[in-house]
Amino acid sequence: MKKRMILLLLFVFGASLAAFAEETIESLTTATDMIWLVLTGSLVFFMQAGFAMVETGLTRAKNTTNILMKNLMDFCFGSIAFWMIGWGLMYGSDKLGLIGFSDFFKGPMGDPKFYRDWFFQVVFAATSATIVSGAMAERTQFKSYLIYTVFISAIIYPVSGHWIWGGGWLSQLGFHDFAGSTVVHSVGGWAALMGAIALGPRTGKYVKVNGRVAVKAFPGHNIPLAMLGVFILWFGWYGFNPGSTLSGVSTDIARVAVTTTLAASAGAVGALIFSWLWFKKPDASMTMNGTLAGLVAITAPCAVVSPGASIVIGLLAGVLVVLSVEFIDKVLHIDDPVGAVSVHMVNGVFGTLAVGIWGNVDGVAVGLLHGGGFHQLGVQALGIITVGGWAAIMSWILFKLIKVTVGLRVSIKEEMMGLDLAEHKSEAYSGFQFFSNM
Amino acid sequence: MKKRMILLLLFVFGASLAAFAEETIESLTTATDMIWLVLTGSLVFFMQAGFAMVETGLTRAKNTTNILMKNLMDFCFGSIAFWMIGWGLMYGSDKLGLIGFSDFFKGPMGDPKFYRDWFFQVVFAATSATIVSGAMAERTQFKSYLIYTVFISAIIYPVSGHWIWGGGWLSQLGFHDFAGSTVVHSVGGWAALMGAIALGPRTGKYVKVNGRVAVKAFPGHNIPLAMLGVFILWFGWYGFNPGSTLSGVSTDIARVAVTTTLAASAGAVGALIFSWLWFKKPDASMTMNGTLAGLVAITAPCAVVSPGASIVIGLLAGVLVVLSVEFIDKVLHIDDPVGAVSVHMVNGVFGTLAVGIWGNVDGVAVGLLHGGGFHQLGVQALGIITVGGWAAIMSWILFKLIKVTVGLRVSIKEEMMGLDLAEHKSEAYSGFQFFSNM
Amino acid sequence: MKKRMILLLLFVFGASLAAFAEETIESLTTATDMIWLVLTGSLVFFMQAGFAMVETGLTRAKNTTNILMKNLMDFCFGSIAFWMIGWGLMYGSDKLGLIGFSDFFKGPMGDPKFYRDWFFQVVFAATSATIVSGAMAERTQFKSYLIYTVFISAIIYPVSGHWIWGGGWLSQLGFHDFAGSTVVHSVGGWAALMGAIALGPRTGKYVKVNGRVAVKAFPGHNIPLAMLGVFILWFGWYGFNPGSTLSGVSTDIARVAVTTTLAASAGAVGALIFSWLWFKKPDASMTMNGTLAGLVAITAPCAVVSPGASIVIGLLAGVLVVLSVEFIDKVLHIDDPVGAVSVHMVNGVFGTLAVGIWGNVDGVAVGLLHGGGFHQLGVQALGIITVGGWAAIMSWILFKLIKVTVGLRVSIKEEMMGLDLAEHKSEAYSGFQFFSNM
Repeated sequence: MKKRMILLLLFVFGASLAAFAEETIESLTTATDMIWLVLTGSLVFFMQAGFAMVETGLTRAKNTTNILMKNLMDFCFGSIAFWMIGWGLMYGSDKLGLIGFSDFFKGPMGDPKFYRDWFFQVVFAATSATIVSGAMAERTQFKSYLIYTVFISAIIYPVSGHWIWGGGWLSQLGFHDFAGSTVVHSVGGWAALMGAIALGPRTGKYVKVNGRVAVKAFPGHNIPLAMLGVFILWFGWYGFNPGSTLSGVSTDIARVAVTTTLAASAGAVGALIFSWLWFKKPDASMTMNGTLAGLVAITAPCAVVSPGASIVIGLLAGVLVVLSVEFIDKVLHIDDPVGAVSVHMVNGVFGTLAVGIWGNVDGVAVGLLHGGGFHQLGVQALGIITVGGWAAIMSWILFKLIKVTVGLRVSIKEEMMGLDLAEHKSEAYSGFQFFSNM
Repeated sequence: MKKRMILLLLFVFGASLAAFAEETIESLTTATDMIWLVLTGSLVFFMQAGFAMVETGLTRAKNTTNILMKNLMDFCFGSIAFWMIGWGLMYGSDKLGLIGFSDFFKGPMGDPKFYRDWFFQVVFAATSATIVSGAMAERTQFKSYLIYTVFISAIIYPVSGHWIWGGGWLSQLGFHDFAGSTVVHSVGGWAALMGAIALGPRTGKYVKVNGRVAVKAFPGHNIPLAMLGVFILWFGWYGFNPGSTLSGVSTDIARVAVTTTLAASAGAVGALIFSWLWFKKPDASMTMNGTLAGLVAITAPCAVVSPGASIVIGLLAGVLVVLSVEFIDKVLHIDDPVGAVSVHMVNGVFGTLAVGIWGNVDGVAVGLLHGGGFHQLGVQALGIITVGGWAAIMSWILFKLIKVTVGLRVSIKEEMMGLDLAEHKSEAYSGFQFFSNM
Repeated sequence: MKKRMILLLLFVFGASLAAFAEETIESLTTATDMIWLVLTGSLVFFMQAGFAMVETGLTRAKNTTNILMKNLMDFCFGSIAFWMIGWGLMYGSDKLGLIGFSDFFKGPMGDPKFYRDWFFQVVFAATSATIVSGAMAERTQFKSYLIYTVFISAIIYPVSGHWIWGGGWLSQLGFHDFAGSTVVHSVGGWAALMGAIALGPRTGKYVKVNGRVAVKAFPGHNIPLAMLGVFILWFGWYGFNPGSTLSGVSTDIARVAVTTTLAASAGAVGALIFSWLWFKKPDASMTMNGTLAGLVAITAPCAVVSPGASIVIGLLAGVLVVLSVEFIDKVLHIDDPVGAVSVHMVNGVFGTLAVGIWGNVDGVAVGLLHGGGFHQLGVQALGIITVGGWAAIMSWILFKLIKVTVGLRVSIKEEMMGLDLAEHKSEAYSGFQFFSNM
């Protein structure tokens, strides 16, 4: 009788200790996840400053306030739209794998994890939205841009995001996009391309001279701000990529930080050397875009490639962005003032493919060059095409609708005057003297 | 006999395991708290850069170095003053609830938690101090500003801070100010208002023409820097508000990040739309101040309101800041070059009241609109009045004393020349050409 | 028989619980270390933006793009070089304590801790490399600078780093350099000094007039950017110093944050007051350098001195940097455009000595002023001399080799034109009007 009691005591005692230990682990793990995602999410938020500085620096002084206001307001309208509608479409419940549909206007809740996840996701949605402002810079009406930004944050981004990160059909097929080369960057990049086409080029950008098109360069007005923006974006990317482990106790965190660092460095090196050889000068704006191209390209594969592969990916991204900028400008005559399409769409696509070329997902060498065959590469390509198609078609329709209703573009007179004076009735650099032939 | 030994063994063994588990939890919790507060405190420190950029960008080029130096030195003098005296008044031992009095010049100590808490608090003290430089910009003597900054960091801020965060009488009454709408922002805002009144307006700001006062606008000289400052401040606010949980294992962290995000966004939206309707242009400086107004207003209630309420609070803050800027400038003729009083004092007051309107503190619906009656609202109002009275009267006396001793304002000649040349014998933008009629 | 079984059960049960608890602690500690080092490493990375802004702001407008590109590319080339070679020399296996030699081109690995440590170390290597660009600003060929940066990151920095942080002979003697006053800052500072000497001064800087040398000042062209850079560096230093605990569960973290804060503040105060008394004006660039001097000086002793001592160290650093800048410029006639040698080398030396003056290492009062005698001070001096000798001689040889091969300096014509136009064929501030006599 007493022996049974001792055994019982032992059992109860041990079980409660085990339960206590498990609870402890769980609550501390929850806390670590929480501070990790709030801190990395804050870093991702700070990328908004990076985009604002890059786009401001690489465009003309007379459109400064305008581009800054677009960068601020796309986050502000976008975050509210993502709270009202976007989150529900992206992460709401869904049986077909096509679209989420619940949790709109998500009110006060007991679960801290919802708040955590919403915060971490809203800054990604905002990144996708803000990419577009660069490609549409210097000629888009302010109010039209605001309409666009509500729609991409509320509908376009969340739906394709649902396919990949919300448990939808692409994720079920094994599509791998760790931190959003496709989900975030190429979606923004496709919308940027459609916007640039729908708008047409800036006045004076492509002029027919004796039957040939002369391409004029409009140099950026503030390179220190652009470079500051590049550094801020790179800094913020340490939230974007390592944070996408979605867990503060993940063992992948540092590896992601390493591949991100090396790919960004290699992107700069690739673009610098390639543009130096080609144009006979170490070009600053190409090099800055090369850095960003390396970052965009490593975003999908950052957790599944080796440091060596990340250098190769970065170098190729740096070359690719130079080729793409030249091709879009000189051959296609599409006017993308800051190179947003080449950075985010072209390298978003390349980075997504890189998973199928160099990837090693969950211990399986799925990459083509690692003997994984074409399966993963095929799935990646399918995702690129379908998500690209969705984003391009939807944003094309959206820009056309805006064009025929409130109008998309400012008048030539306003464009010449500059959008700061025309739209905001103010100057960005009061007191400074400028040359007037800008 | 043996059974007893087994029981004893069991007991000792279990007790030591339990002690071990408890210690583990405690030491890991302590570590999590430590890194959380040092990282969020660092983010709050970075807000100093945000203030410097906003204030620089929104004032004239000829006073750039001066405002930058004020922003740097108020932190530097202030942090040493807070170490010598301020901390002891704010968090020292106290029996009456009026003022702390111990731990001055706190030397080497064994307790890491003291260091942690001091670091997290000094950056808040510095925020309060630095708010004032904007309202007093372009006409205050450098040395006089330094004197002011020592006093607010050593005495004015710590005493009212003690009432609320140091265990003083207001906290005992149930006054709720989660991250410092009153403790930090309105104290800084009241001092800013007193400073602006004591100084008088910038020369040429309000000119009597035929018996009526003509109000001249002095536009800011560098809008990209101002916008960068807004982004930096917003980024830093993710330290300011979520960090104010004071614990890395708090389940409130993400909720605070969400309400902060939505209120800032809504503040920008509110100010943009309201100023657009009123002035027929989407005004940049109003929108930037609207963003900051939303952040200031959500600072007190960020942990006790729903996401929906945070949007309402932000929208109202955005409208309020536009109304307040216009009222102070056009009606009261008080010259606050960057709108610091409207952002920090007016919205610090509004945010503090918001706790009593929409708040749900510790599971109790204390907010008026949630059926909580007027009790909490009354306590909040009492805090607003007493803290505001303390800060306003003390800073008024301080500015008057400075005025009659070393003087508060530069000469008209120095003001015309610009404070950079007059006070620092240097230009902020060497080589750039400026229009001379600034 | 049954009693034995109970005892056995008890033992197995208890042992597995204890193992479970231990594993839990270890895995959560590992996770905390991981997020701590990735987040603080990211802050250290962001210091690159700070250096870029400080150096840009304190030099002339015509060399803006060039200095920005140097700051970007030294990180990009340097990080790849540090991955290929540097890490292996610094942290590779070694029996003599002189040099590491393994782990080159470190490929895909199973151990997350390697990635973590590499990431945290590469940003320190990059800091050391980037210090040099300021001292060599406005006259160095772009390609020559790139060659230099590969060598310092691959060889010079890692070898002396190995002596101190890689388990080498200096660490075995008890040399204490917590976060790198010597390892990082003085190594960069010595290379900066050698570079400035090897290059010679900027044209027009020292002109012989009637047998006496007239010293011309070239004022910086963008003080807001320089000040922003100071704030960014200070912010990043909260990664640099507290992160150097190398553990997220260290109890030293907050103490380091406190001494860092107070030393930086005191550095600014010291330089401000001393330059104000000396030059009769509160000088902005001296004060900014004073802030950085305080930070550099506290970097070695940040974990082993009291808050009071950190204020003394900061004040002295602030005075020292003013004296050093004047001495190097006015007496030695060495042209260091931004004061990099005075900030990083002189104060790196001073900070390293400070450990032997005020230090209390692991509970032992080793500091001279605390009765610790001259032993620690002697070890610190030995490290300063040997590391300084290594860095100075190696970088001198390197710059001489570059000079006789590809050349180190641009032509006078290119210097007059500005390096932006001469090297990069572009302007940093397109559209702005400048005075032409710069």
